[in-house]
Amino acid sequence: MLQRPAVSAADNVRPVCEDILKRVQSDGDSALRDYAKRFDGRATDAPLLCSDLDFDDAEKQLDTELKDAIKQAYNNIRRFHLAQVPKNISLSTQPGVACELRYQAIDAVGIYVPGGSAPLPSSVLMQGVLAQISGAQTVVLATPVKGDTAIAPAILYAASLCGIKQVLQIGGAPAIAALAYGTDTVPKVNKIFGPGNAYVTMAKQLCAQQVPGLAIDMPAGPSEVLVIADARANGEFIAADLLSQAEHGPDSQVILLSDSAEVIAATEKALAEQLKTLPRAEIAKAALENSALIKVQSIAQAVEVSNLYGPEHLILQLGESAEFLPKIKNVGSIFVGDYTPESAGDYASGTNHVLPTYGYSKVYSSLSLLDFYRTYTVQTVTKSGLADLAKAIIPMAAAEGLDAHANAVRIRLGEKQ
Amino acid sequence: MLQRPAVSAADNVRPVCEDILKRVQSDGDSALRDYAKRFDGRATDAPLLCSDLDFDDAEKQLDTELKDAIKQAYNNIRRFHLAQVPKNISLSTQPGVACELRYQAIDAVGIYVPGGSAPLPSSVLMQGVLAQISGAQTVVLATPVKGDTAIAPAILYAASLCGIKQVLQIGGAPAIAALAYGTDTVPKVNKIFGPGNAYVTMAKQLCAQQVPGLAIDMPAGPSEVLVIADARANGEFIAADLLSQAEHGPDSQVILLSDSAEVIAATEKALAEQLKTLPRAEIAKAALENSALIKVQSIAQAVEVSNLYGPEHLILQLGESAEFLPKIKNVGSIFVGDYTPESAGDYASGTNHVLPTYGYSKVYSSLSLLDFYRTYTVQTVTKSGLADLAKAIIPMAAAEGLDAHANAVRIRLGEKQ
Repeated sequence: MLQRPAVSAADNVRPVCEDILKRVQSDGDSALRDYAKRFDGRATDAPLLCSDLDFDDAEKQLDTELKDAIKQAYNNIRRFHLAQVPKNISLSTQPGVACELRYQAIDAVGIYVPGGSAPLPSSVLMQGVLAQISGAQTVVLATPVKGDTAIAPAILYAASLCGIKQVLQIGGAPAIAALAYGTDTVPKVNKIFGPGNAYVTMAKQLCAQQVPGLAIDMPAGPSEVLVIADARANGEFIAADLLSQAEHGPDSQVILLSDSAEVIAATEKALAEQLKTLPRAEIAKAALENSALIKVQSIAQAVEVSNLYGPEHLILQLGESAEFLPKIKNVGSIFVGDYTPESAGDYASGTNHVLPTYGYSKVYSSLSLLDFYRTYTVQTVTKSGLADLAKAIIPMAAAEGLDAHANAVRIRLGEKQ
Repeated sequence: MLQRPAVSAADNVRPVCEDILKRVQSDGDSALRDYAKRFDGRATDAPLLCSDLDFDDAEKQLDTELKDAIKQAYNNIRRFHLAQVPKNISLSTQPGVACELRYQAIDAVGIYVPGGSAPLPSSVLMQGVLAQISGAQTVVLATPVKGDTAIAPAILYAASLCGIKQVLQIGGAPAIAALAYGTDTVPKVNKIFGPGNAYVTMAKQLCAQQVPGLAIDMPAGPSEVLVIADARANGEFIAADLLSQAEHGPDSQVILLSDSAEVIAATEKALAEQLKTLPRAEIAKAALENSALIKVQSIAQAVEVSNLYGPEHLILQLGESAEFLPKIKNVGSIFVGDYTPESAGDYASGTNHVLPTYGYSKVYSSLSLLDFYRTYTVQTVTKSGLADLAKAIIPMAAAEGLDAHANAVRIRLGEKQ
């Protein structure tokens, strides 16, 4: 019952993306303008990057309530991710052998924010705050803008809070190619973050294969939630959480595990009721068809099932979670208690909403500040330290048939080679 | 002059690997036995996994000097990586909103150790120590064994120090497929580590694409070293370091940047001298043909060049490194001073020798303990905390057109939807 629906891109996605990548690589900005016209109906003389004036206009146009909302979310996300700033590690492994692990912010990052039916300022914050804290020298945000409309003020306002100055008004595979290869207008980046449709995902994968030194964030997949609820849980809360996942798209998967038949029945009733007034009811209904409300023997069994399934979002509507939390693994993010809906983490609690899904939570991490850093090591050995290390290096190099490795030690110690 | 040689797998590598993956997926152990016979000349009844007896024999057969060498390397590597054990993070982003970042060891990991012309116990340690510290429940080491010989005692001894009990005597793409899909004998793992030839690399990439929830370590590439040396540096030391990289393979790249023509001349002379007695001289000579000894204007300029090139290994043979170290980035590992040859880090200083190469040091990390963990987040919101968060969630959900997200908050606060 927990089988995830198969996901496969249409056959033409790969060749279409390959063409776009080649074209952007060879023709740069003019290719970007052509694609913006073809895919988004932009004027050919529309500027590729937002201007300072665009940022000023966004600030003026945005209503105060939404501005304050974005600022509150920004502050919480910033607090949680500031606590993740990494510290270098330094120690001597033996006398005369000093070793360090050092963190380096990735120089140049690209952040993709998909278009969809509405602008997504939350997606700007969930990536932009991290880039800002890391101190990346170059941060380019790319997002599609339709026709002759201006870019959504909420996007630019969120970007400006994150200190992002370069906003590329281009979407889809052409935007990814621009970030990967660079153009006259768009700086080439080292790592591309952000969700997107099948073309964006394919373009990211192809670029990562084709451009040496380019990295991308985690694999994308349909969004999913698993709710574990005990007999005292509120069916209306559960239904609201299931629907807030289901409204994302028809391929969303939503699952309830409860040891109470009454709670399952109450949830079913509340689902029917809440669907009546939901604007995105058709999408949510389609998603509910892939989904399941399952009676389990016990909450302990529900935790076992969750660990096997590996949900992106796990909501624990339990009177007492403390017993179960240490046993939970393979999740993207956990929402504990009756008053922690998934939408808290989607927007404003401070945790990141970019999470591994589709079973990747067994091995991939939730997006964290460390994704904007890399580590490298440093060692400093004294002559006497090397004399002692030689007792390990020389026999092992000999066993591995690598004589020059041994020579590099012997020659320094004045030994015959 | 610093252009890296192009690397591309032969055309048949992909289809060959695709066949092997399919075959192992469908036929399991019997496919593994067939491939072991075909590729390595193993007997069809040779056991796939090493026995306790094999471990005991290895312990007895290995000479004391090599045993002590492996133990010393193990201890240093363990000390450096123990210092990397991550700590969970917990804070309140605002009153009533508790957020946590938690670390989870990846359950099941596969470690590949290539065959090559000699057994590579260092490759066992550089992966196995990390798996041991993380406490991964399942650790499977795979390595090819030729003909009717027993597996190299040094491999099994290093594995036993790391607490590895499951050693698969199979190499190449079949081993990777076994780890990715699992067979009756081989447990399926969540992440596959380790270097290998073009087939191993391709098999890892294909498996990562085909098996949901499977991850692999960093992209592989030819090994490389860049030495920065000042006028007081010793040409013989430099030559020994260049050769210890060049002997890895004909595609290795070795570079010297010095502000002293005399040092470059001394290095050239020492290279010719040391090559005379080097067993792997032919391989080293081929590598030296792709390589360059370059006169720079200053050490500061050399550091700029290094940052652009992004070397896997960077050796600083400088009288004073402290001025330059903070300016260096985009490296895998740095070796500071006249008495820190690359072979110190390759075997025994304690740092990891699995490093990003081929320009990936701009964005990928040196292998560290964190590669054996994943992170997830937990949030716990109180009712009053949610009432305050609602000021951020509800306007943002409205702006993004996601009404069910807002409803999940309103219904909990008893507000009308």
